[in-house]
Amino acid sequence: MRDFQDATLAYEASPGMPVLIDAVRDYYRELGVELEPNDVLITTGGSEALLLTFLSILDPYTEVIIPEPYYPNYTTFVHAAGGRIRALPTCPEEGYQYAYRERIESLITNNTRAIMITNPGNPTGVVLNEQQMRMIADIAKKHDLFLICDEVYREFCYDDQFGVPCMARYRDLDENLIIIDSVSKRFSACGARVGCVVTRNKELQQALLKFCQSRLAVATIDQVGAAALYSVPKSYYAESKEKYRQRRDLVVSRLRQIPGVGVEEPMGAFYLMVSLPVDDADKFQQWLLTSFDDQGQTVMFAPGAPFYETPGKGINEVRIAYVLDLPELERAMELLALGIARYRKEVMGIEE
Amino acid sequence: MRDFQDATLAYEASPGMPVLIDAVRDYYRELGVELEPNDVLITTGGSEALLLTFLSILDPYTEVIIPEPYYPNYTTFVHAAGGRIRALPTCPEEGYQYAYRERIESLITNNTRAIMITNPGNPTGVVLNEQQMRMIADIAKKHDLFLICDEVYREFCYDDQFGVPCMARYRDLDENLIIIDSVSKRFSACGARVGCVVTRNKELQQALLKFCQSRLAVATIDQVGAAALYSVPKSYYAESKEKYRQRRDLVVSRLRQIPGVGVEEPMGAFYLMVSLPVDDADKFQQWLLTSFDDQGQTVMFAPGAPFYETPGKGINEVRIAYVLDLPELERAMELLALGIARYRKEVMGIEE
Repeated sequence: MRDFQDATLAYEASPGMPVLIDAVRDYYRELGVELEPNDVLITTGGSEALLLTFLSILDPYTEVIIPEPYYPNYTTFVHAAGGRIRALPTCPEEGYQYAYRERIESLITNNTRAIMITNPGNPTGVVLNEQQMRMIADIAKKHDLFLICDEVYREFCYDDQFGVPCMARYRDLDENLIIIDSVSKRFSACGARVGCVVTRNKELQQALLKFCQSRLAVATIDQVGAAALYSVPKSYYAESKEKYRQRRDLVVSRLRQIPGVGVEEPMGAFYLMVSLPVDDADKFQQWLLTSFDDQGQTVMFAPGAPFYETPGKGINEVRIAYVLDLPELERAMELLALGIARYRKEVMGIEE
Repeated sequence: MRDFQDATLAYEASPGMPVLIDAVRDYYRELGVELEPNDVLITTGGSEALLLTFLSILDPYTEVIIPEPYYPNYTTFVHAAGGRIRALPTCPEEGYQYAYRERIESLITNNTRAIMITNPGNPTGVVLNEQQMRMIADIAKKHDLFLICDEVYREFCYDDQFGVPCMARYRDLDENLIIIDSVSKRFSACGARVGCVVTRNKELQQALLKFCQSRLAVATIDQVGAAALYSVPKSYYAESKEKYRQRRDLVVSRLRQIPGVGVEEPMGAFYLMVSLPVDDADKFQQWLLTSFDDQGQTVMFAPGAPFYETPGKGINEVRIAYVLDLPELERAMELLALGIARYRKEVMGIEE
């Protein structure tokens, strides 16, 4: 980006700069996925990829089936397009697994337009195996639905040397599949705001392109930078994953030492949902911020309820993002343990 | 931007970086408009400012009154929000003027949510005078409508030393007014994709903020660059305007020498709508690209019809953007004159 020499920051092509589209295609080729240039539409982050996708495929009152808990901003994007989310319930006791054919098919109605999954999952860290991916692909095909796969955490999969297999390898799914992608997590470049939609459905490409044209272009400099990111040495991915694996292992081991905390080891992404022995995680979080400290420090998580569509769920859950360095994570877990003990005593009145 | 030293491109605050918000506020202060930090929401270009505005204020089937011809992408953004455009007709014979109270009020219904103007106008170059601005403000207030002012061409006003007065000077309009702004035209930085929504309406600020939060942030580097742009010396604005004034004068004088071309001198922005002595401007444009050349060169304009909501209007009009240097503009006008003469003879069969 520092070497950028153009005298004027002009509008780039609406579908994205060819240098970046080609970098994305090269990256996908390594995953075993051959893409045409038109199959990739560069967007302002994965966020715009989501918004434009829903604007393109949803009419008022149509529905998207999404396993809950899910990334809360999905709600805003679906609602902006006039649609609704049909939540596919999961539970902590089953490790938030959602790949059950009967449960998914029971939610399909005439209003259903798409099934959407995040794989690896935010906030649960659930990763689908090959058999589960194929089963969900079959459901989408059988019922003629779009299958939206948010794969922005693709490389963060701790039980597979090569990351999560991309859904786009299933060529019988060309008309159904929409991949949401982004450089934000892959390259720790959230502030670049560069993502893309990948689809081989020509009609959908046309609809997406109209929205891309209406907003003219993605920022020039950031596209230049994103294209360069894709040329990192391959060792980067393994090193980055190893760093997050260590963070995950530390957080899980510390959480298992706190009495009453329910935790499953997440397989991917860099989040986990945990249930805490408190009455209300949101209230507990506010208390941590206003009434608790240890040597002047406290700790903050994302309360779990906003990750659920179903009212009343996630009340005692929180999402932990293990995106800090190990010493900070260690201290955060210490503060959580201290906070839980003191909250149970002082606020809930429990003597242990 | 080259001096940016942060090790990581993290998400910035959803409403925008404070350094940029403050730069925008300083700029508005010079226009006589005092803004609180919350009155400014930084967006990914004026495009996102428009989309988020319509998503925030429109329900399905509600309407926005917009003088036609207008910037065609307004249609996409209004439709994305489920709304409809109610066109306020103008005509070349009246110089595309639209500030007529009775005509505007006759279009207001129970479904009307907003009046929207582009001042200075794209594609017409029409600029409102103070009396007209006040009159339109009064209509919005009287009927309790939002007034959306797209003022991205503010400095490009050729009959006023200080640019177009900002609508936000009318403090009685605080609850109604939404300003759409951008660095793209002001600083010739289209590829930065940095704009903003300016409004003092607190409820609307909250709605807009929710959409801003859902897409997380605007690109970091571009915000840093945009903030720096606002520190250009004041002479920049006058020099830039003088350059465009010369371009306008050249184009208008050359157009007046072409028989049958209808042209009014535009007061602002850097566009003009002209009527050509051809049967169909779109057909003529295609012919210019496929069947015409002079020494290997041809010329391209934007056909007029897409700037109109009303079917059948603008058929023989084109929009000319005078954004080239003088020698290229001179040559473009020469090619237009040659093209018209040859098209009338060869395609329309008119001997002159």
